[in-house]
Order: sequence, then C-alpha cells, then structure tokens
Amino acid sequence: MSKQLEQDLEALKEKVLQMGSLVEESIQKSIRALVERDNRTAAGVIDDDRLVNTLDVDIEDECIRLLALWQPSGSNLRFITTAIKIITDLERMGDLAVDISERTVELNEEPPLKPYIDIPRMAEAAQHMMKQSLDAFVTGDPDLAMKVCQEDDFVDNLNYQIFNELLLYMIQDPKNISRAVRITYIAKYLERIADHATNIAEMVVYMVKGKVIRHLECFPESDAPGQ
Amino acid sequence: MSKQLEQDLEALKEKVLQMGSLVEESIQKSIRALVERDNRTAAGVIDDDRLVNTLDVDIEDECIRLLALWQPSGSNLRFITTAIKIITDLERMGDLAVDISERTVELNEEPPLKPYIDIPRMAEAAQHMMKQSLDAFVTGDPDLAMKVCQEDDFVDNLNYQIFNELLLYMIQDPKNISRAVRITYIAKYLERIADHATNIAEMVVYMVKGKVIRHLECFPESDAPGQ
Repeated sequence: MSKQLEQDLEALKEKVLQMGSLVEESIQKSIRALVERDNRTAAGVIDDDRLVNTLDVDIEDECIRLLALWQPSGSNLRFITTAIKIITDLERMGDLAVDISERTVELNEEPPLKPYIDIPRMAEAAQHMMKQSLDAFVTGDPDLAMKVCQEDDFVDNLNYQIFNELLLYMIQDPKNISRAVRITYIAKYLERIADHATNIAEMVVYMVKGKVIRHLECFPESDAPGQ
Repeated sequence: MSKQLEQDLEALKEKVLQMGSLVEESIQKSIRALVERDNRTAAGVIDDDRLVNTLDVDIEDECIRLLALWQPSGSNLRFITTAIKIITDLERMGDLAVDISERTVELNEEPPLKPYIDIPRMAEAAQHMMKQSLDAFVTGDPDLAMKVCQEDDFVDNLNYQIFNELLLYMIQDPKNISRAVRITYIAKYLERIADHATNIAEMVVYMVKGKVIRHLECFPESDAPGQ
C-alpha cells in the first residue's frame, strides 16, 4: 500500500471517529437535558445536528474521492465502503438524539412524571456500544465487534422493562398518558441507537472476516416483545 | 463505458428493483394481516424477511465486486456507492414490515379496538414513495425523487393524527391502552418506512446532481410533533 493511501485511510478513520465523538456527545447531552429538565441544552442538541450532517456529507465525499483516486481493492476497498455505511448509521444516531431532545422539550411543559433511573442506564449502555463499535472499526477487531452485538440484549430488555412500567403509570391515571407515551418513545430511540451500534459492529465483522453475522446472531432491528 | 460494465450495471439495477418489490410486498402483506387480523399472513412476512436479508448481502457483494473489477469513476462510481446505501434502507424497511407483523400478532390476542382507516392510507402512501424513489434511482430522475420528499409531510401528518386519536382512546378507557400503544407503534413504523423512502430519494438527487438535499429541504428522521 502506498504511503499516501495509508495516510488518506488514517485521515478517514480520524474523521469517522470525530463524527462518532460528536454524536456521542449529542446523546449524552440529550439525556442530561431530559434528566435535568433543561430546555437550553435540548435546544443545543437540536442545533448541533447541523455539524453532524456536514460531517456526514464531507466524509461520504471523501470516501468517493478515495475510491476514484486510488481504485483500491481487497481490504482497503472494503474499509472505504464500510465507512460509507457506518456514517449513515452515525448520522441517524444523531437524528435520534434530536428526537430525544424534542420529546424533552414537550415533557418539560408538564410537571415531572417520575425520576429517571433506567433511561440513563440505557443511554450509558447504548453509548458504550457505540464507542466500542467504532473502536472495532478503526482497529479492525472482530472480537470487540461481537461483544457489541451481545450487549444489545441488555438494552432491549431495559426497553421492555421501561415500557411495561410506563404502561402501569398510564393505566393508573389517564393524566399520565401523554407524558408516559413520550418517555416510551425516548426509550425506543435509545434502543434504536443501540441497534445502529449493533449494525456498525456487524459491518465490522463482515469487513474483517467476510462473514455475515447480521441477520444471524444479531437481530438489531427486531423489537423487544410488547413493542 | 464498456458493454460488459453496462450490462453489469443493468443487472445491478434489476437486483435492487427485485429487492424493492420483495420489501413492498412484505409491507403490503403486513398491513393486510393487520386489517384482516390474520396471524398466518403475519407469520409469512416474518419468514420472508430471510429472502430480503439474503438479497441485501448478495447485492452488497456484487457492488464491491463491480468496484474492484471495473474501478469505475464519475457517475458509475456514484451509482454503485448509492446502490450500497439504498439496499441498507430497503433492508431496514423489510425489518419494519416484520415489526408491524409482530405487533399484529400481539394485537390479535385481544378483540379489535377500532377499524383501521388511516393506517392503510399511510401504508399506501409509504409504498408509493418507496416505489417512486426506486424508479427515480434506476432512471436517474431527480425531479421524481424530489416529489417523494414532498410526499413525506403527508405521511408525517397522518402519523400525528393517528397518535392524537389513539391518545383519546387511551384516556377514555385504560383497557384500551396496550392495544392503542401498539397501534401508535405501527403508525410510527410506517412513518419510518416513508423516511427510508425519503432517504433513498435524497441519495438519488445527490447521485445525479451532486446536490445535498438531505439535511436541508427534507428532514426525514425528525418526528411529527407530539411524538
């Protein structure tokens, strides 16, 4: 591999990681805004999405440029096509942080329904999965990627628990319904963020091993029962 | 462009359309199963997802093969990288048809809550968007793609109406809640199917015009207010 191609691929890795950090920060902020009932932070997350979107377009263009310039084959080709797919997942994770913030602003129009305990746990797990899936991508580590897939069950189960708990709140008092439904949506958004991390991890396994584990061991898009 | 490359790209278009037809059929069946309370058809949709997943993997491999073999540049390169992204959206639309069917099986455990009127309308619009976005891709028609983006508002509004209507059902009687929540999820899945069609349409505009309309005119991932 030429020195210049090597440098270009390193720079591409850096940009994907940079986009990942930005999205991770948005998810973190969106949950802090929810827990602290802070509309200003929520609005910041919505604003910051522009940066994520700009990176998405820039990185995709860079991938196309590298494909045209270097006409790579084998693992370099797979690396670049995987990057194109990964940034789409990252961009949608950023959109989900925006969705969380929009629901937060709506929730803040009413008094708090209950303290948040499981939602921050779920967010932490989803962020951990995201971080690990990107680490697996840049280091080309399929074992780390497999761990991410396994963690997805934990998030699905939490979502299921949250859903059932909130259903009880709704049944107890109709006044709770509009808030409880919004919180089930937030849990669902976090579940989808974890699904996107799982998608990335599955792509990494395919990139490194040429083995398809999506649609087999992991079923990232399927929902927890009851939802 | 060599005759062989031309033939390979035609074959790729055919495969993407074939995958699209399969997913469209799954969405149609999932809504029929919902309206007719037919668990057997719902189970069929869940089973058929394997075919969609197989096509996803096959087409991606074919795209990588074409990139390595032909080392294309310009519009052919963009076409192939767009195909890689489009099949990811199609695959996830297939997953959403599975999600609809899973909720249908759960809903069939209880008596019907209400006749479905807006959900089939929403499904029809989402399918229409999907069909048009793929037509725009294979014919390289950015005007048709732009129409798809505009149609997304209609689906978002229907989702919003359905959500508010079901909220009333929940408030009227707690016995309605578990069914009503499931139906809001189905509406949300359809809204996401329409979002994926919008994603595809936006990619087509970018492929043809090099102009980014995602993140600008269309905001496919943002939710209708109140959700």
